[in-house]
Amino acid sequence: MAPCCDVGMHVTVVGGGLTGALAALYLASRGYVVDVYEARADPRHAAPAAAASPSALRDAALRKAADASRRSINLALSTRGLRALGRVGLAERALEMAVPMHGRVIHDKRGKLRLQPYGAAAHEVLYSVSRVGMNIMLLDELEQRRNVRLHFGCKCVALREDGSATFEKAAGGVVEVEAGRLLGCDGAFSAVRALMGRVTRLSVSLEYIDSGYKELAMPAGKDGKHAMPPHGLHIWSSGELMLIALPNNDGSFTCTLFGPFRTLESVRTAEEVLRFFETHFPDAVGLMPDLTSDYINNPIGALSTVRCSPWNFNQMLLLGDAAHGVVPFYGQGMNCGFEDCIELDDALEATGHDWAAALPIFAAERKQATDALADLALDNYIEMRDKTVDRLFLLKCRVHAVLHALLGSSYWQPSLHTAVSFTTMPYHVARSVCERQDRILARAALVGAGLVASAALWVARRPSLR
Amino acid sequence: MAPCCDVGMHVTVVGGGLTGALAALYLASRGYVVDVYEARADPRHAAPAAAASPSALRDAALRKAADASRRSINLALSTRGLRALGRVGLAERALEMAVPMHGRVIHDKRGKLRLQPYGAAAHEVLYSVSRVGMNIMLLDELEQRRNVRLHFGCKCVALREDGSATFEKAAGGVVEVEAGRLLGCDGAFSAVRALMGRVTRLSVSLEYIDSGYKELAMPAGKDGKHAMPPHGLHIWSSGELMLIALPNNDGSFTCTLFGPFRTLESVRTAEEVLRFFETHFPDAVGLMPDLTSDYINNPIGALSTVRCSPWNFNQMLLLGDAAHGVVPFYGQGMNCGFEDCIELDDALEATGHDWAAALPIFAAERKQATDALADLALDNYIEMRDKTVDRLFLLKCRVHAVLHALLGSSYWQPSLHTAVSFTTMPYHVARSVCERQDRILARAALVGAGLVASAALWVARRPSLR
Repeated sequence: MAPCCDVGMHVTVVGGGLTGALAALYLASRGYVVDVYEARADPRHAAPAAAASPSALRDAALRKAADASRRSINLALSTRGLRALGRVGLAERALEMAVPMHGRVIHDKRGKLRLQPYGAAAHEVLYSVSRVGMNIMLLDELEQRRNVRLHFGCKCVALREDGSATFEKAAGGVVEVEAGRLLGCDGAFSAVRALMGRVTRLSVSLEYIDSGYKELAMPAGKDGKHAMPPHGLHIWSSGELMLIALPNNDGSFTCTLFGPFRTLESVRTAEEVLRFFETHFPDAVGLMPDLTSDYINNPIGALSTVRCSPWNFNQMLLLGDAAHGVVPFYGQGMNCGFEDCIELDDALEATGHDWAAALPIFAAERKQATDALADLALDNYIEMRDKTVDRLFLLKCRVHAVLHALLGSSYWQPSLHTAVSFTTMPYHVARSVCERQDRILARAALVGAGLVASAALWVARRPSLR
Repeated sequence: MAPCCDVGMHVTVVGGGLTGALAALYLASRGYVVDVYEARADPRHAAPAAAASPSALRDAALRKAADASRRSINLALSTRGLRALGRVGLAERALEMAVPMHGRVIHDKRGKLRLQPYGAAAHEVLYSVSRVGMNIMLLDELEQRRNVRLHFGCKCVALREDGSATFEKAAGGVVEVEAGRLLGCDGAFSAVRALMGRVTRLSVSLEYIDSGYKELAMPAGKDGKHAMPPHGLHIWSSGELMLIALPNNDGSFTCTLFGPFRTLESVRTAEEVLRFFETHFPDAVGLMPDLTSDYINNPIGALSTVRCSPWNFNQMLLLGDAAHGVVPFYGQGMNCGFEDCIELDDALEATGHDWAAALPIFAAERKQATDALADLALDNYIEMRDKTVDRLFLLKCRVHAVLHALLGSSYWQPSLHTAVSFTTMPYHVARSVCERQDRILARAALVGAGLVASAALWVARRPSLR
């Protein structure tokens, strides 16, 4: 990435999580002077340094750090995220710490496993990565840059129209930041968004769904290897419940149970937990030695969608979950936040780094895409839970795959999942392309059925003509 | 109102505005011990005491106090609000300070006025009241109660799951409130709602519309009398703009100009203001001597809709705008907040003051009604602005009025406006009743048109039969 002409322009980035850290890296690569303020402590102090420890130990520590932050432990990195990391030269390093997942592994009640590959192409793979691991990689990279300063334990408590801001330091005292460009990358419960709402008319909606989640551990087997086939995203579904497991590179899996709050809350004692799992996910029970204590001790996480408008005000901009938090069922939260960084970079390049021009362009284009993703992510809960075991749905998938193989990806997307996970077409375009394909298929099926019926009628009537 | 059995139970009310003060009065009347915490200063210190000053002076002071709070100066009290005030014996006193408005007074571009009466019945009148005047009346009444304590300049800054709360005093220091029942009546930008969102999954949406408003004064004429006919709600409409004027009882009117922000913001200099008003509202210009300075100095207010769910958590409840802020175009914000007090009182009485049982019942019933009102209020902007001058719309209104006169109000509502403003049927019921009536009328019109067409055809064909 070439630095932009006005090297030395300053940007304040609020939030040093995944999106904030990558956004800062993009800006630093363009020559901006960047200050990153993160409310939490440096995650690298919670986990041992990358080079010093064996991966198993490190992963355990990373999981602990993630637990402390009450955010999900691992995430599925896909094409959009990899492309965004690639532009700052980090795709390879991300892949080194990832476990590739080639498809869904569906568990049935008898413990039988069925692999549904994500696609035939080499790039149609999801990568299970550790959230904290990714974050540390980005922060380590930021720390190499001379034009970046990282400030941990600094909470944004005031924001003015000119972009000047006040941060309260966990250690005591405040930091005052002068007027200027500011990115709010501080997540779904963004303080920047709330403070921007005091200086401009910011419409915001934060909507919880009735389901929550509980994270549970499945350690490596006695041989240190994964207790189940590692290269897939494991899914168990049972009525309103869904259990998924993503592989970690220390041989463990991180399992997440999704279900209605009232159901998850109704299971309380160790006995109830065991009975519950033996009923719904019998083959998982034996692989999770700490199941009962995990279940009893881990909190139930909530899942919400955040929508807001406008994302930009003067020289301030919301990015990532702060602008468009989504439920996790498409595995796109991180990928979408990373893609924001590319799109913003493109808008800045296209306008010669004129922020007043670039921010509205970026926000208008991008909001269409993320609004679509928000809907898709909500819909995909149903699809993951119910449709991966639905024969008609699977048949439709096969027909799409055949058409894709015959026509090529320029003319036919094998599935919405593929278009979302393995292409970089905007989410709303992916949705409309696939909706159009579905309509074509439905019409073709109707015409086909009509032809069959006509033929049958013709055959049936022939004797009467004799 | 009879005190409930458990006299002495405590409730904390956050917000001493219209809804908060009336809710506190209801609870006090049932025997609860009530502490009211209001973030602002006592409005009675900004305005002279009720009895001591002539009404003109008082109104001027009230307007100043309202200006300071940047909230609208006067409001239209209607049947629901009056009923709620009546239950605590305050309806008469409210009417004493009100100016009755018997209908809309539509101004056309040539300065011609046309009265559209709200209805034929005696109770079909809106009452223009001062917001601060109403607030002071309620606070004065609260102060008479021995089981009520008022605390001004106390801002709610923390709230815990058990209903315990922390208030920061404007004068310095904090007040800690013990666990217990708590009502959040602190308006559309409710601090209680934001703090409740930290202890429970509270879905919230705050949506601004593209239009804003500017308040402007029309003083009394030289004779001290109103400069326009006083007993109506004056409306001027011009494209996307709408100007309304509500009478005050000192001979003045308070005018509010509604329009898109970009339009209101584009008018800047004294010359531009005059040209703008002469183009759009020519007959109003001469009656507003301070028009240009008012326009230039007064801020543009924003208009938003607030929806959230759930309203209740443990022994806490959101009430009024904090739970369901609406845009002002149905004049129902205050009336709806007051009606909340009745509905809550009914739910408490029905459950023997079992708060755990009453709050979910109240919230579930009431949310349907207020969700409908939010939509109706948004729709009525269009109706007030465009349809009051639309002949077809007016014709439809006349047909409804005739059917109402023929069938009576049990069988036919003269209009949605009447059902909302002059009945106490729940807002969502009012809407569905009137939608049904519209469907019946549309079908009747279709059948009528069909009959006329058939008759015409029959007549036209007769000669050919000869």
